[in-house]
Amino acid sequence: MSVSDSPDRGGRLSAELIAVGTELLLGDSVDTNSGWISGRLAEIGVDVFRHMTVGDNVQRLASAVREAAARADAVIVTGGLGPTQDDLTRDAVALVAGVALERRPELVAYVTEYFAARGREMPERNLVQADMPAGARVLSPVGTAAGFAVAVQAATVYCVPGVPAEMRAMIAGDVIPELSRRRGAGSTVSRVIRTAGMSESGVAELCSPIVRRLDETQGATIAFLASRGETRVRVTVSAASRDQALALTDPVVDEIVDLLGAGVTGIDDEGVEHAVARQLMAAKQTLAVAESITGGCVGGRLVSVPGASDWFRGGVIVYATDLKATLAGVDQAVLDAHGPVSEEAAAALAVGVRQRLRADVGLGVVGVAGPTTQNGKPVGTVCLAVGLEDAPSATQTLQLPSWGRTELQEFAGSFALDFLRRQLAERA
Amino acid sequence: MSVSDSPDRGGRLSAELIAVGTELLLGDSVDTNSGWISGRLAEIGVDVFRHMTVGDNVQRLASAVREAAARADAVIVTGGLGPTQDDLTRDAVALVAGVALERRPELVAYVTEYFAARGREMPERNLVQADMPAGARVLSPVGTAAGFAVAVQAATVYCVPGVPAEMRAMIAGDVIPELSRRRGAGSTVSRVIRTAGMSESGVAELCSPIVRRLDETQGATIAFLASRGETRVRVTVSAASRDQALALTDPVVDEIVDLLGAGVTGIDDEGVEHAVARQLMAAKQTLAVAESITGGCVGGRLVSVPGASDWFRGGVIVYATDLKATLAGVDQAVLDAHGPVSEEAAAALAVGVRQRLRADVGLGVVGVAGPTTQNGKPVGTVCLAVGLEDAPSATQTLQLPSWGRTELQEFAGSFALDFLRRQLAERA
Repeated sequence: MSVSDSPDRGGRLSAELIAVGTELLLGDSVDTNSGWISGRLAEIGVDVFRHMTVGDNVQRLASAVREAAARADAVIVTGGLGPTQDDLTRDAVALVAGVALERRPELVAYVTEYFAARGREMPERNLVQADMPAGARVLSPVGTAAGFAVAVQAATVYCVPGVPAEMRAMIAGDVIPELSRRRGAGSTVSRVIRTAGMSESGVAELCSPIVRRLDETQGATIAFLASRGETRVRVTVSAASRDQALALTDPVVDEIVDLLGAGVTGIDDEGVEHAVARQLMAAKQTLAVAESITGGCVGGRLVSVPGASDWFRGGVIVYATDLKATLAGVDQAVLDAHGPVSEEAAAALAVGVRQRLRADVGLGVVGVAGPTTQNGKPVGTVCLAVGLEDAPSATQTLQLPSWGRTELQEFAGSFALDFLRRQLAERA
Repeated sequence: MSVSDSPDRGGRLSAELIAVGTELLLGDSVDTNSGWISGRLAEIGVDVFRHMTVGDNVQRLASAVREAAARADAVIVTGGLGPTQDDLTRDAVALVAGVALERRPELVAYVTEYFAARGREMPERNLVQADMPAGARVLSPVGTAAGFAVAVQAATVYCVPGVPAEMRAMIAGDVIPELSRRRGAGSTVSRVIRTAGMSESGVAELCSPIVRRLDETQGATIAFLASRGETRVRVTVSAASRDQALALTDPVVDEIVDLLGAGVTGIDDEGVEHAVARQLMAAKQTLAVAESITGGCVGGRLVSVPGASDWFRGGVIVYATDLKATLAGVDQAVLDAHGPVSEEAAAALAVGVRQRLRADVGLGVVGVAGPTTQNGKPVGTVCLAVGLEDAPSATQTLQLPSWGRTELQEFAGSFALDFLRRQLAERA
């Protein structure tokens, strides 16, 4: 164990997370819970040094809990609290804590009533969800699975369900407030600047003077991350309070945003669709989309922004070629001359949807998702167009690598939104 | 260490995975690589007993690699191979292997040419990507990051980039073939039966006779998993070859599919959109969608199915209320009398889009995503309708819990597709 893994780190509180489920080790399912919990722990200044995932096996789960409890102040276990034969968290944690399981009458009553209230018969097996390690504190159930907290060595082990909605309610309602009290003052704030069209090393090189200055003053740490066509810059600050941490973070974020200029698409959870929303609201303009290759994904991302009805009119999904003419008013001669996957078709779609849906701005997205070429255009060809009332349409053609169909559709949507963002920025 | 964690398990090969990146421990990013690699390892019969995630810290990363190498035959490390200051996998693994880093001239040439070929200047920092632990075997780079394999104790430690496309190419091209050779014969097959509208415990109770029989014969193991409104049943079989394992798995899958009947939406990666695709192809029918709350998400999911152009016409995204009338032909009197979020409006949309887009089947999806109520309807209200040529529209109203906006839109899309699937099944 390295020194920095020791539980005694001058008043800081540390946590490790354990996700339970053979489906995670087989790759049938992805653990999104640990990331969500980590985000909440960072907000209250609890350090997370490790995540682990183990299968539905009592011995291996017990080993992981024992190891984590030796290193961290708090261990949070997600999953394995269901009613089926492969739900073994209760047994494993009782084993590590050196206590027996006992059936809690109040939980028997709760589970029985839960089913009765829904007019459903309770499967006998659900009663195992009323079994708790002796001495454990019960965390209020949201669904049928109760969580619990129990001491193991110097650590507290919190066990919560793996179902995300139930896990979130229990972590936010019980675990975070308790750890926040134990943690006392102090908070870590982390903010993320998102960019498109810039390489990770290029962004890192641009930011290197800031990184060097912050290394010297120990004011903040900066990290770089590339994924799904975007490079992200993370700024992290620890301070005595959340307000103080934010006050130290914000100027650094502003400085980096200025430095990276037009490459910046958004901050934190805000994808490029939020940038587009801000641009349209600032310009008091409305948008309509005409999608072929993306089948509606671009519209779906746009309506995920709260308040979208202020600037999003709607769109047409012109998947069949004849709909490009009948639904969006594209001249059949354009389709005949250039094919449905062309800048000309994208531009006619952008103009057509803008007019027919009475919007200020139109976006057209066409392309070849595969598995086969279309009218001689290879898989991965994507043509984009933005149509405005008083200007010729702006168009762009991309040749994306031969990823899978779903990835191509997703990236086509991201590039379309970023193209729209850059066009709107030029006009602003 | 428990007995089952020992590397010597009668010819079986075991692996542990380590994902590297502080962004994962802060919750800024989710590790999808470990799940993908686990799926590939399962296919070749390599047992994965643990995933770990650690931050950009040499000591903690080295500890994790050391522990994993003591338990498993192979350790796969993803991430931390980039050019920036926080990319520390090369240093940590060299530390554990007890060797120095050395700069490889062939990788210096590769990285230099990589940038030259793209007409970009190479940032000086990128040269650290040519540093490898002494004695390591280089795994061919796809982007700028080379991977490597190096011996630590009795294990082989494979280090690959965290960028998913680069990771996948290196795992599939180098690591899996090598482990497959070491593993020799033998394969584990895992298949997943997906259901909608059934509780996890209800599905488990229905399947319990099969589970008991398989427990006795040791033919296969069954596990249950609930997430995002669906319950999944996983069937896993290990055998001497992949063909043998499949031959043992398929009859069990068929038996469970028969048992669960109309609740089954698909197998393995196939979501409910694949079930709808099969139904429409079998009936030689086409589909058009009219979406409001989901903004195009339903169309986006439908076009993710290869060959969608055979049965998907397209759709309209009628986000603004006036477009429900102008674009989908909904009678304004219906909107005035019942409001845009009503079964009547959904039915008129389904009929309208079916007619205007000349499809055999129309699907209408409206609802309130929040943050505020709409025309007196609470957040989470979703109305669905399926329109067919020779029958009155089928409609349904759901009241979903007050999840976040994005979750509501996602679930509304899933429920809409499952409602469509059930309607098509009744008509088949």
